[in-house]
Amino acid sequence: MKDPSNPVCRTISTLLSRIGDKWTVLVVATLGDGSRRFNELRREIPSVSQRMLTLTLRNLERDGLVKRTVTPTIPPRVDYELTALGHSLLKPVTALTEWALDHVEQIHRAQASFDAELDKAEAA
Amino acid sequence: MKDPSNPVCRTISTLLSRIGDKWTVLVVATLGDGSRRFNELRREIPSVSQRMLTLTLRNLERDGLVKRTVTPTIPPRVDYELTALGHSLLKPVTALTEWALDHVEQIHRAQASFDAELDKAEAA
Repeated sequence: MKDPSNPVCRTISTLLSRIGDKWTVLVVATLGDGSRRFNELRREIPSVSQRMLTLTLRNLERDGLVKRTVTPTIPPRVDYELTALGHSLLKPVTALTEWALDHVEQIHRAQASFDAELDKAEAA
Repeated sequence: MKDPSNPVCRTISTLLSRIGDKWTVLVVATLGDGSRRFNELRREIPSVSQRMLTLTLRNLERDGLVKRTVTPTIPPRVDYELTALGHSLLKPVTALTEWALDHVEQIHRAQASFDAELDKAEAA
């Protein structure tokens, strides 16, 4: 990780940016409960747009974290589920989400105090 | 986390995006070893620009994760260190980084196979 210009570090940086993405976290966490159809995911994550959900699922599928299964009914049925690799990501993602949940108030307070100091310095 | 439109979820989403940022991860990991001066950080993370390092440190300071200490020598000496809150972030960040390191090859293979399938489908 010392130099992000090499290819492995670049992939890790890309991965971290993607994992840190809120939609990725929400989709991975939701699929952690079991497989879902596209519209079920939309209902469970109401603020995601169709476009962003499509994009997020496609990136996750390309990375091998999500498996997409099309059943050729009329209309076709599309299910998404975590792969074994996707499941292995649940644990560190959950740890990070829990850290964020546990410390969100403390961070809010730090931000408010930082901004107040800045206002004071600018008014002086 | 179910609805990112509420303020707590918004903060968590912002936090996750920031934590996932490669420079944040690299700076937090480097400061995990102990306090550093600005130029020491630049030397240890050679690919970061002065501007990005300044911005990353400022965001980390505002979130209460990094403490900035100015010693009024000539020239002034500026040291950065993790706060207790920053230290508490080391563990989940390290877990995620290690996951990424452990699975980077597997993800590369998944991406190559996804792209090959796509090429085949488009050529058909």
